[in-house]
Amino acid sequence: MLSNHLQNGIETAKMVWSRIPNAEEGDHEHAGLLRKSDGSSVESLEYEVVENHAYWEEQDQRGKLFLVYYVVVKWFFALLIGIGTGLAAVFINLSVENFAGWKFALTFSIIQKSYVAGFIVYVLINLVLVLSSVYIITHFAPAAAGSGIPEIKGYLNGVDIHGVLLFRTLIGKIFGSIGSVGGGLALGKEGPLVHTGACIASLLGQGGSTKYHLSSRWLQIFKSDRDRRDLVTCGCAAGVAAAFRAPVGGVLFALEEVTSWWRSQLMWRVFFTSAIVAVVVRTAMGWCKNGNCGHFGSGGFIIWDISGGQEDYSFEELLPMAIIGVIGGLLGALFNQLTLYISYWRRNHLHKKGNQVKIIEACLVSLITSIISFGLPLLRKCSPCPDSDPDSSLECPRPPGMYGNYVNFYCSKEKEYNDLATIFFNTQDDAIRNLFSAKTIHEFSAQSLLTFLVMFYTLAVVTFGTAVPAGQFIPGIMIGSTYGRLVGMFVVNFYKKLSIEEGTYALLGAASFLGGSMRMTVSLCVIMVEITNNLKLLPLIMLVLLISKAVGDAFNEGLYEEQARLKGIPLLESKPKYQMRKMTAKDACRQRVVSFPRVVKVADIVSILQSNKHNGFPVIDHTRTGETLVIGLMPRSHLLVLLQSKVDFQHSPLPSDPRPGSRPIRHTPSEFVKPASSKGISIEDIHLSSDDLEMYIDLAPFLNPSPYIVPEDMSLTKVYNLFRQLGLRHLFVVPRPSRVIGLITRKDLLIEDSEESDTVELQSTSVRSRHRDRSMLRNGDAESPLLNVLVQGHTSS
Amino acid sequence: MLSNHLQNGIETAKMVWSRIPNAEEGDHEHAGLLRKSDGSSVESLEYEVVENHAYWEEQDQRGKLFLVYYVVVKWFFALLIGIGTGLAAVFINLSVENFAGWKFALTFSIIQKSYVAGFIVYVLINLVLVLSSVYIITHFAPAAAGSGIPEIKGYLNGVDIHGVLLFRTLIGKIFGSIGSVGGGLALGKEGPLVHTGACIASLLGQGGSTKYHLSSRWLQIFKSDRDRRDLVTCGCAAGVAAAFRAPVGGVLFALEEVTSWWRSQLMWRVFFTSAIVAVVVRTAMGWCKNGNCGHFGSGGFIIWDISGGQEDYSFEELLPMAIIGVIGGLLGALFNQLTLYISYWRRNHLHKKGNQVKIIEACLVSLITSIISFGLPLLRKCSPCPDSDPDSSLECPRPPGMYGNYVNFYCSKEKEYNDLATIFFNTQDDAIRNLFSAKTIHEFSAQSLLTFLVMFYTLAVVTFGTAVPAGQFIPGIMIGSTYGRLVGMFVVNFYKKLSIEEGTYALLGAASFLGGSMRMTVSLCVIMVEITNNLKLLPLIMLVLLISKAVGDAFNEGLYEEQARLKGIPLLESKPKYQMRKMTAKDACRQRVVSFPRVVKVADIVSILQSNKHNGFPVIDHTRTGETLVIGLMPRSHLLVLLQSKVDFQHSPLPSDPRPGSRPIRHTPSEFVKPASSKGISIEDIHLSSDDLEMYIDLAPFLNPSPYIVPEDMSLTKVYNLFRQLGLRHLFVVPRPSRVIGLITRKDLLIEDSEESDTVELQSTSVRSRHRDRSMLRNGDAESPLLNVLVQGHTSS
Repeated sequence: MLSNHLQNGIETAKMVWSRIPNAEEGDHEHAGLLRKSDGSSVESLEYEVVENHAYWEEQDQRGKLFLVYYVVVKWFFALLIGIGTGLAAVFINLSVENFAGWKFALTFSIIQKSYVAGFIVYVLINLVLVLSSVYIITHFAPAAAGSGIPEIKGYLNGVDIHGVLLFRTLIGKIFGSIGSVGGGLALGKEGPLVHTGACIASLLGQGGSTKYHLSSRWLQIFKSDRDRRDLVTCGCAAGVAAAFRAPVGGVLFALEEVTSWWRSQLMWRVFFTSAIVAVVVRTAMGWCKNGNCGHFGSGGFIIWDISGGQEDYSFEELLPMAIIGVIGGLLGALFNQLTLYISYWRRNHLHKKGNQVKIIEACLVSLITSIISFGLPLLRKCSPCPDSDPDSSLECPRPPGMYGNYVNFYCSKEKEYNDLATIFFNTQDDAIRNLFSAKTIHEFSAQSLLTFLVMFYTLAVVTFGTAVPAGQFIPGIMIGSTYGRLVGMFVVNFYKKLSIEEGTYALLGAASFLGGSMRMTVSLCVIMVEITNNLKLLPLIMLVLLISKAVGDAFNEGLYEEQARLKGIPLLESKPKYQMRKMTAKDACRQRVVSFPRVVKVADIVSILQSNKHNGFPVIDHTRTGETLVIGLMPRSHLLVLLQSKVDFQHSPLPSDPRPGSRPIRHTPSEFVKPASSKGISIEDIHLSSDDLEMYIDLAPFLNPSPYIVPEDMSLTKVYNLFRQLGLRHLFVVPRPSRVIGLITRKDLLIEDSEESDTVELQSTSVRSRHRDRSMLRNGDAESPLLNVLVQGHTSS
Repeated sequence: MLSNHLQNGIETAKMVWSRIPNAEEGDHEHAGLLRKSDGSSVESLEYEVVENHAYWEEQDQRGKLFLVYYVVVKWFFALLIGIGTGLAAVFINLSVENFAGWKFALTFSIIQKSYVAGFIVYVLINLVLVLSSVYIITHFAPAAAGSGIPEIKGYLNGVDIHGVLLFRTLIGKIFGSIGSVGGGLALGKEGPLVHTGACIASLLGQGGSTKYHLSSRWLQIFKSDRDRRDLVTCGCAAGVAAAFRAPVGGVLFALEEVTSWWRSQLMWRVFFTSAIVAVVVRTAMGWCKNGNCGHFGSGGFIIWDISGGQEDYSFEELLPMAIIGVIGGLLGALFNQLTLYISYWRRNHLHKKGNQVKIIEACLVSLITSIISFGLPLLRKCSPCPDSDPDSSLECPRPPGMYGNYVNFYCSKEKEYNDLATIFFNTQDDAIRNLFSAKTIHEFSAQSLLTFLVMFYTLAVVTFGTAVPAGQFIPGIMIGSTYGRLVGMFVVNFYKKLSIEEGTYALLGAASFLGGSMRMTVSLCVIMVEITNNLKLLPLIMLVLLISKAVGDAFNEGLYEEQARLKGIPLLESKPKYQMRKMTAKDACRQRVVSFPRVVKVADIVSILQSNKHNGFPVIDHTRTGETLVIGLMPRSHLLVLLQSKVDFQHSPLPSDPRPGSRPIRHTPSEFVKPASSKGISIEDIHLSSDDLEMYIDLAPFLNPSPYIVPEDMSLTKVYNLFRQLGLRHLFVVPRPSRVIGLITRKDLLIEDSEESDTVELQSTSVRSRHRDRSMLRNGDAESPLLNVLVQGHTSS
């Protein structure tokens, strides 16, 4: 029983909004890093609201043809993301391997004459590379520091952090990680590649970078945040697929670690993107095999192929493997805690002093890393080469300038090698390959491994949080495989007769540390298998991961969650908190509700927007009988757009004529789309004359007429599930309803697809007969006289 | 402003309900197969409602200790499911391999003397095995027929089909599939193993089978449907992991194909279960290697290891591979359509004539299969053995009684083999191994492969839907690898110089057919890699799957969806239908709402329950001012429990005293738990005296006080997403609210964990400072005088 003008207002709103099925879902909030005026750099969150009229509106205008175009572009973008990320990965890999390879080749050739000169050259090259990286980050793309995974995770959870997905971030990430990884720091390029993939996806989603005039109007069809989020998910998967050459691992990483709302349709597209990446990377590597790529070229598609290693295992080995799991959990949790403390300290005491400090810090870290990695092997006595096995392809010492085990470094005799230099004075990929390598029993001494473990762990902790792009996968694998190999050495000594490879234990160690630090399970497991090509170790990897994750979970949260929390990214966990069980929806509403009438004075809007930070306002109208009625939700961003454009201002305080056609459409839907790469408008940016302030706006056409609602005394756990699983931003808490108009059950939602029913006649038979049954039942109801007393059959109000 | 007694009623209800955060989510509807009185067997759906007070209630009673116990049991059950499913798989495999191996050994030894006698023995053994299978199914466990995957999918989507998860179904499935697979029918044991895993999980979930007195009260703690569903999901994953010895594939299968509501916490447990299965199966197989298992013992953990095959591929091969994808899509879609027609025809014309017909049908199919698989190879001329390669371990002809390529069957000379018999007159595992085998170029003639393809495809279609346990994975792999190898032969002939293995194409063919029929992507891909141990083919498998799924999707839905639809299982798809965009919530309500007052006469309840099939009823109360107010949802099943027990009947038509403690608790929560293995009570089963009918019941303590609500004019797409993603059964459609009490945003739901905040002091700093910021903002709001005009701050009503 709505009054007429009210009904009209709602209808007007529905003209726009009823065609936006998912506009509310998964839209993003905007977490700006607000620097408080008192100078403290503790981050504060500022929320903005995004609404998207655009996509469905346009779709309706253009009809079926647009739908086809939309689907085609969606898949074309998945293809482009795959190609782009694949090429970026190849470029980064090529550059890093060439820089690092050239660096080591030069150093090795110089140390034949003078170790001091070699040391100076080595330190300087590293310094220059790191300096270039930190300069790019501090002066050009500050958002590209770190791994970027917590930020992407936040984005996909619904929190938009400014600057994370810009074109400059992409560029900074690519070139910055070449510098930092090539410069020999204790960090990896895998996390940054995930961020790179996400940036590429996001840029495609907005149709290119508008700032750098690389955009195309034809590709700007992804205006809902949901579509953009889907693309970014594809980008993440592509990043992992490219980093580890592990396409299935990429899909699972995107699924398990980064996304919050997953749909199975999306899986299909993510899978496609990963497949494309695999093909691109493989093709590029095939091209490199012909020697076109300099120092890059020795590796196959599998990064650390250990398929020639241990094939079987006995029960006695399960205990040492479980011990590896426990160590991984402990060291991983410790790593998370230490990095958290250091990041916290760094943010509060170091980085707020400006870019200069950041640059000096990174250079210092580089210097220390160079000194340790060059100096420590010098202190180590060389070992004689093992008796060479004619079948084995391993040479000892390895030929100068080549990759391989048994590095001859500061050794007095020809047939000797330095085991510490083999892992320390080497590229990371090669060091890991050496640690994983089978058929090299007793290559490393326990002392060297322990030294390396302690030093590298410390370096990894210290390096974490410097202002360079930095991934934690490779350091994690390095640390884990070191203690894994250490355990393996003891096992080999203990169970003498078994065919045990130390390399297997190194692999398990790597899995355990990553599990203990990042707390991933399925995806990590698949990634480990895909990078080592030994499926037979799968059950062992699973076992180790289970233990290390369980042990780690006893101490703290995963690395990315901890970092996200530190960065003030409010991730909604998948599980509601325990204490929510005793709370109701009303208990959670901590803000006073500020609502608007349907037609509102411009001056009122301005003062309300200035006086609070709310991002959504209920709009309330009155029926002619004086009853109030909530007609929808007005997002702040829409109000700002309306205030800025001024075209909808009117002199009359009465609702505008709602009849379709009588009102010119003054706004194109795309005006309400949030620009992905900027912060959007602020109320301070809008200047209105005093005449303008006296005008009115009818909000009805611009509001969301049916936001999700919950009754005030609903359990907060239920509310939480609703909010998180649908990816909402706003939820109205309303009084208990006075009556129930209808009841929707599963069968009410099983609507036959009318278009398909002709072709698949057979299949729908059962559905149709169900319909018949139901209508019979309904007649049955009506015949019962008693029912009429109790029935509340409001078929129309 | 609720009146007192109303508030009390709601409070009473909340005593029970507010502690059930997920009771509404994911509870099940019950689809009974109702045979209509007119004799037509078209299925009709009958819904029942399940509500679960039990778990949270009990948990609160017993407190923290119970919570620990609950978590321990949850993981213990995951362990048990893993062990149970692993052992079941080993048992089935052992039996099948032994029956089949013994059958072939016997037949081969007889045909040395007489082919006629051998034929008769072969046919008879097959017939006996199939007969035993179909007898078990028809007389003991009718729900065990078919693969069971559509039913499990339905169960996990929220539709409970009677009999699918009983103990007898489990037994029938295990022994039935031994008979049907051992009997040489064109079906596999993989689908049934998924069902087996699900049954084991479900039985554990209800603490054992009550009917067979195998239950334990200590294990009966899983009373919510959500817990049971989680266990069944674990069971599915375990089934796949055991069937294919593919643990990661199992996790992904459960995720991609069967579940509808996935939570990442669950992934962790599913993963654990799969790992256990892998360990169990591997251990059992290690034990078999010592020759303890008869004919079973030759296989390794990898079913069809092709890691020795093709390692690399060139660009020229992508075209024939794409062609394989297209063929797979076409043949897969055709398979789905044909099986759909045949199942439909069978159900309507054959199976309703009774068990006799089903038995005769299965025997006939067995007879035809035997005749074809024995007879066709007889017609085929033998080929001479290829020049033996001294390096190769392949013998030609294979030694009698052993597995291997090159079967000598009806050949005149010693050094000859029959290529059709090699795939047709063999166990399925062995036939596939032969088709996948590398280094056996020109083993099969195109003619033989084509003959086999046509005959086996027909057999698979005809066999589908007979009353025996039947999986479609193995037939799919057989069909696919046949045409794959066929294409491979042409490719080998065409690109002569490339190192192409026909076996690789057979593998791709298998992937393409499964993709075209079942429409899985990631899980299938991982399964294919895990069963063949060749990671390098991963990108190719992905490519082929993408093409075949896309081609198949152009024609019809996946096999399981089609079958579920035919069986009348109303699966809610993940995507809302297109036409829902133009509908509102009210449009979907096709039933008249029948509601109860708070205190209702027993006679009224009975007549309402008799006169309709609704499963949920709104309960409406009146305030003292005469306003009506919806106080909750009363499920039919609770009403039935109340009617049956009678202890809550009262003489007064006034609400009972709601003060806690004043009312004895007459019901244990477990009374409201739905028995998993029966249909529950029906209104016809309850007999009440005329005195009883005059009594009253106060419904307040038993209703769900806050079901999810949607406003009447919300877009149906939004409603659909809400309904499906939260796994609801009932949704109240209510009028637009008259006011907004509060607005919940992301930050309102970021509640600090008070227990943790002491230990992780550092981490919460940023959160706390945000709180401070917010409270400052709030004070800012209050200072603005203009706001007070527009603010609607109902902090309490």
